[in-house]
Amino acid sequence: MEKTRVGVIGSGYWGPNLIRNFAEMPNCELRGIADLSVVRLEAMAARYPGVRTTTDYRELLNQDLDAVVVCTPPHTHHQIAKDCLEQDLHVLVEKPMTTSSRDARDLIDVAARRDRVLMVGHTFVYNSAVQSLKRMMDDGRLGTIHYIDAVRVGLGLYHPTVNVVWDLAPHDVSILTYLLGAMPLKVRAEGSACVHPTVEDVAYLTLTFPGGVLTHIRVSWLDPSKTRRITVVGSDKMATYDDVETNEKIKIYDKGVEALKPSNSFGEFQFNYRYGDIVAPFIEFQEPLRVQAEHFLECVRTGNRPITDGHAGLQVVTIIEALQSSLRDGQPRVIDGLLESSPDVLDATGAARS
Amino acid sequence: MEKTRVGVIGSGYWGPNLIRNFAEMPNCELRGIADLSVVRLEAMAARYPGVRTTTDYRELLNQDLDAVVVCTPPHTHHQIAKDCLEQDLHVLVEKPMTTSSRDARDLIDVAARRDRVLMVGHTFVYNSAVQSLKRMMDDGRLGTIHYIDAVRVGLGLYHPTVNVVWDLAPHDVSILTYLLGAMPLKVRAEGSACVHPTVEDVAYLTLTFPGGVLTHIRVSWLDPSKTRRITVVGSDKMATYDDVETNEKIKIYDKGVEALKPSNSFGEFQFNYRYGDIVAPFIEFQEPLRVQAEHFLECVRTGNRPITDGHAGLQVVTIIEALQSSLRDGQPRVIDGLLESSPDVLDATGAARS
Amino acid sequence: MEKTRVGVIGSGYWGPNLIRNFAEMPNCELRGIADLSVVRLEAMAARYPGVRTTTDYRELLNQDLDAVVVCTPPHTHHQIAKDCLEQDLHVLVEKPMTTSSRDARDLIDVAARRDRVLMVGHTFVYNSAVQSLKRMMDDGRLGTIHYIDAVRVGLGLYHPTVNVVWDLAPHDVSILTYLLGAMPLKVRAEGSACVHPTVEDVAYLTLTFPGGVLTHIRVSWLDPSKTRRITVVGSDKMATYDDVETNEKIKIYDKGVEALKPSNSFGEFQFNYRYGDIVAPFIEFQEPLRVQAEHFLECVRTGNRPITDGHAGLQVVTIIEALQSSLRDGQPRVIDGLLESSPDVLDATGAARS
Amino acid sequence: MEKTRVGVIGSGYWGPNLIRNFAEMPNCELRGIADLSVVRLEAMAARYPGVRTTTDYRELLNQDLDAVVVCTPPHTHHQIAKDCLEQDLHVLVEKPMTTSSRDARDLIDVAARRDRVLMVGHTFVYNSAVQSLKRMMDDGRLGTIHYIDAVRVGLGLYHPTVNVVWDLAPHDVSILTYLLGAMPLKVRAEGSACVHPTVEDVAYLTLTFPGGVLTHIRVSWLDPSKTRRITVVGSDKMATYDDVETNEKIKIYDKGVEALKPSNSFGEFQFNYRYGDIVAPFIEFQEPLRVQAEHFLECVRTGNRPITDGHAGLQVVTIIEALQSSLRDGQPRVIDGLLESSPDVLDATGAARS
Repeated sequence: MEKTRVGVIGSGYWGPNLIRNFAEMPNCELRGIADLSVVRLEAMAARYPGVRTTTDYRELLNQDLDAVVVCTPPHTHHQIAKDCLEQDLHVLVEKPMTTSSRDARDLIDVAARRDRVLMVGHTFVYNSAVQSLKRMMDDGRLGTIHYIDAVRVGLGLYHPTVNVVWDLAPHDVSILTYLLGAMPLKVRAEGSACVHPTVEDVAYLTLTFPGGVLTHIRVSWLDPSKTRRITVVGSDKMATYDDVETNEKIKIYDKGVEALKPSNSFGEFQFNYRYGDIVAPFIEFQEPLRVQAEHFLECVRTGNRPITDGHAGLQVVTIIEALQSSLRDGQPRVIDGLLESSPDVLDATGAARS
Repeated sequence: MEKTRVGVIGSGYWGPNLIRNFAEMPNCELRGIADLSVVRLEAMAARYPGVRTTTDYRELLNQDLDAVVVCTPPHTHHQIAKDCLEQDLHVLVEKPMTTSSRDARDLIDVAARRDRVLMVGHTFVYNSAVQSLKRMMDDGRLGTIHYIDAVRVGLGLYHPTVNVVWDLAPHDVSILTYLLGAMPLKVRAEGSACVHPTVEDVAYLTLTFPGGVLTHIRVSWLDPSKTRRITVVGSDKMATYDDVETNEKIKIYDKGVEALKPSNSFGEFQFNYRYGDIVAPFIEFQEPLRVQAEHFLECVRTGNRPITDGHAGLQVVTIIEALQSSLRDGQPRVIDGLLESSPDVLDATGAARS
Repeated sequence: MEKTRVGVIGSGYWGPNLIRNFAEMPNCELRGIADLSVVRLEAMAARYPGVRTTTDYRELLNQDLDAVVVCTPPHTHHQIAKDCLEQDLHVLVEKPMTTSSRDARDLIDVAARRDRVLMVGHTFVYNSAVQSLKRMMDDGRLGTIHYIDAVRVGLGLYHPTVNVVWDLAPHDVSILTYLLGAMPLKVRAEGSACVHPTVEDVAYLTLTFPGGVLTHIRVSWLDPSKTRRITVVGSDKMATYDDVETNEKIKIYDKGVEALKPSNSFGEFQFNYRYGDIVAPFIEFQEPLRVQAEHFLECVRTGNRPITDGHAGLQVVTIIEALQSSLRDGQPRVIDGLLESSPDVLDATGAARS
Repeated sequence: MEKTRVGVIGSGYWGPNLIRNFAEMPNCELRGIADLSVVRLEAMAARYPGVRTTTDYRELLNQDLDAVVVCTPPHTHHQIAKDCLEQDLHVLVEKPMTTSSRDARDLIDVAARRDRVLMVGHTFVYNSAVQSLKRMMDDGRLGTIHYIDAVRVGLGLYHPTVNVVWDLAPHDVSILTYLLGAMPLKVRAEGSACVHPTVEDVAYLTLTFPGGVLTHIRVSWLDPSKTRRITVVGSDKMATYDDVETNEKIKIYDKGVEALKPSNSFGEFQFNYRYGDIVAPFIEFQEPLRVQAEHFLECVRTGNRPITDGHAGLQVVTIIEALQSSLRDGQPRVIDGLLESSPDVLDATGAARS
């Protein structure tokens, strides 16, 4: 089998992790790295001696490449990804796919015209724990979903041009839309800019999904305890996904409350409580970035649509855009319902299951 | 010293804890208990042989009492407390003081006319950990307060006539107004009624305080993990108060971020991170209900105004009322700024310090 | 049904908990309390108005009692329990039953001659979590038991006349003999007297059970973190019992290692690792002291032999005696194998199941 | 400055971590890797394209090298390290330095004769948390050390030829001798071979240090919860070092007990309890393997004696040897007191401070 030839644009904070994964995969050849920083390029050249480096990403595109990974600041994603697609290269772009839904739609169009794979790095969708939670919910093991609560806080890396909503919330938004297999109907945001006058570093977000399922996301760059926690409350069971926990990332609680229809003449509801076992299912650890990279290469080779394709990227950008807008006045924003999505569960081989 | 003669109305879920504390205090004589349930009265009579019991609380008021503790369902507080005050009895009433601000104002008026002590059982204000946090904030050790986040969730006891906002939020609202020494300017609520169609069991509340200090309260009767946690983020330090934790209830984190004014020609902010020690100060445990009971008896004897007096009760009821109203449409409610408050720190003897 | 008439001797540190339980049980009448301290007796008299109090326990024995609970310092157990038995009273005595195996045998003899119930307060045997663990082991769910590790440490209450082995180890020794249903063949102890020159406050104990099952107990009065933890490692599963944990006291780990018989010509073993789910079974909480008190009353009424009868008490005293002896020179002590025991699981009604 | 030329022998389980560190240091050139496995060598060649690989480590020694890192199975350390030293190469050898004290002495002699650096990979000595604990103890902040308890358990990797004492205990033994700056006078071991009949996988070790300071090490390959915890109890403060914890690895507890000399006529000791704050000092994380590698290169360049030099290696081997011997009969072994040691604290630059 021929190796897929890959170039990476951007080797800053997150880029080296992507580079390492593509460099180590047997069916892939890492050929070039572009970055504006000569210092970073030298570090990469020392670590990956055979790989060409350049400060001009366009030079990279002229080499014999099949695919490009874009890992630059968000506001540059659209231009760079578009340039790549127009050179007939498959593209994996970091989240958020773009900084506006218009740009996201544009990328989808270009990718469609050129018949190239356009995939977004919604890494958590490739996380074994999230996959496990998704299967549990799809199998109905939690019952009807009552609500979902997500917390992603800690001492964050401030960016003068990006706020905490654009930085952290795409993770949770991509997880929520994936788990629920739907777009929210309505979103709202409140936040505060504590450290820098124009950069929100704390935000509380509500997303209401079809069926009135309330979900809430708390994001903060300014919290003493690193927390990455999602609580899914269903009518039959409750589950938590704690990404900071080493061994028991997912816990399923066989407990809940039921309101029994009034049987007496007073018409009073009775509440029935259920307490049962707590199970932490064994989840084989796989580095999500590796699973994501393999899925990308697989889609490049087969032409399959990635789980986190351009549409998934557009969904997340659309939601973040609406949250950002709501953040200004605290008023809710209705989400355009025309978007379609088809998130799937990965099967054991890393391929998407329909 | 003569013993203060006390009667208790209501011996349901929470009442026995209050009864036990008043029964065990040396400067107090528990004389009577009223409850609608004969079964509960029998249990109390067995445990406290000398105490008279009755199903009609008005009978209690005719006995030789100095003070009454009201621990009945919230919608009965106003009537019962008023009856007691009008019998010239001092009153300690459970939180929420009443179910409407109008009723709360009425009680304050009656207490003033009769010159009686009216105190509300905002127990957390008498909690050593909250007191310790309050002193820290007042001393300026945390710097300027950026925001406060509160979480109070678990598997709750459902009431068909009370929702989670009226049941749990008074705790956090009383803590927040006490810690910040102020009323919020604006509040907003979103919630969901998951188990019973008309009873909200999950709610997300934002309270904006003077100076733009954002505070958020998450309350839920439907969460797998009991959590009681308040995070106070200041410009100098951060602190957490975890009431579920046994030994390290308060933790102070010497860490944070600062935005340094732009010095270069690009006008870019620099962010300065600080990481330091984490300290869990030793806090001598005292049962908050006991401290509260002693403070009540002290106020009865001295005529002092309690820390959690009728005004404090009115503040909490006003805020909950506004939150409840906001819960219907998600729109913010402005809080009437005329209310004044004067929460204080208890000194070592349990007396209020001005 | 007639109420069993009970007297309690000793109302110091632990006594009030026993007194409260006997006072609250419907089929029991608490008639008298003896203690050397007049102050303590006054506190008890205030709390239990109908109960007679005395500083001379022998006075108590002349009243119309059916049974006595002995909760005095260990070195007084033998004399007091013997006096009670010889007055034809049933006896529940706190652990350790006596301070020498000779005294323990003597009490067993007296109880047998008088045909009275002699029961020891090995409270942990009546703990729902220990009962659950016992059932699991007896059902074979853990497979063959490889070894057991027990830790009981924290900042302890020092006694000038009792060391940490006599104070804390009886808990773990009674749990281990109960869980394994056997006496150790050999024990050994090492320790240190850190704070007071003649009182060991730290000790490491090994007890080797039939089949070579190694068990180890770490006890310390001088540790910063309160820990109460037992780890049972079986060939099929591993389990932990963490008594400090609120919700997940018992956890069962479906993991382990197996040595596969050599199949290749090099004769090398292969090691097979198994990783599976972690389950925290729901355990309905019952106050162990209450279960113990009910079991005692049941035995008094029916004449049944208690799970923790005199023989169980003798076993623990014999083992502690041997450990204490070993503590002097670090040399192992062989345990007299003639002792027989018959610990059982309580059934749902609190009665012993054979 | 010329780069130190380094070769690595052994690229199995642990080797790749050492290789990565030496490959990334600027003042070092990784020139060759030897391993018996061609598969592993190919993986290394792919990752480090310029580095020569060979299945015969002696070939490596003929290249232009300054120093060699030996990371092979323990029983091969002596022969390989000796071959390297005799080629006038500096040597860093993994722990345990050798499998007998005789071999350890031999290596020390050869290194002395050839005037080469001989250093052992007691990595935990280069761990910032251990360094911090050491400074605290040396500064007297904990007071007199009462005892130390160490636990290192989890599901381990079984080796048919090495037991848990040789595999895990060298870590704790090297930490204990480093922290206390002394050799134990007496050691004893008890253990069990649960999974494989001849390989101990569970062991309890006591090491008595000068002044009667008791230390205890629990090691197990067969425990459900990964634990790496050391508790140091001093007369003034207590400290814990929890290597599994992310943020609060070191905690200092300002609590303890004191026995006050008898003042009353009964001659009874009074016990005085102290409860104070808990502090988790901020510790800047540095990868211990990196600090160790830098220290090695520094010693190679300057000729300085490493903190974990051959003598430190001999100490650990001597103690493990005695423990292994004791494991057979449970009888204590006296340690030869002639050994001298000079462990030091690293200063901020990574150089040893006398």
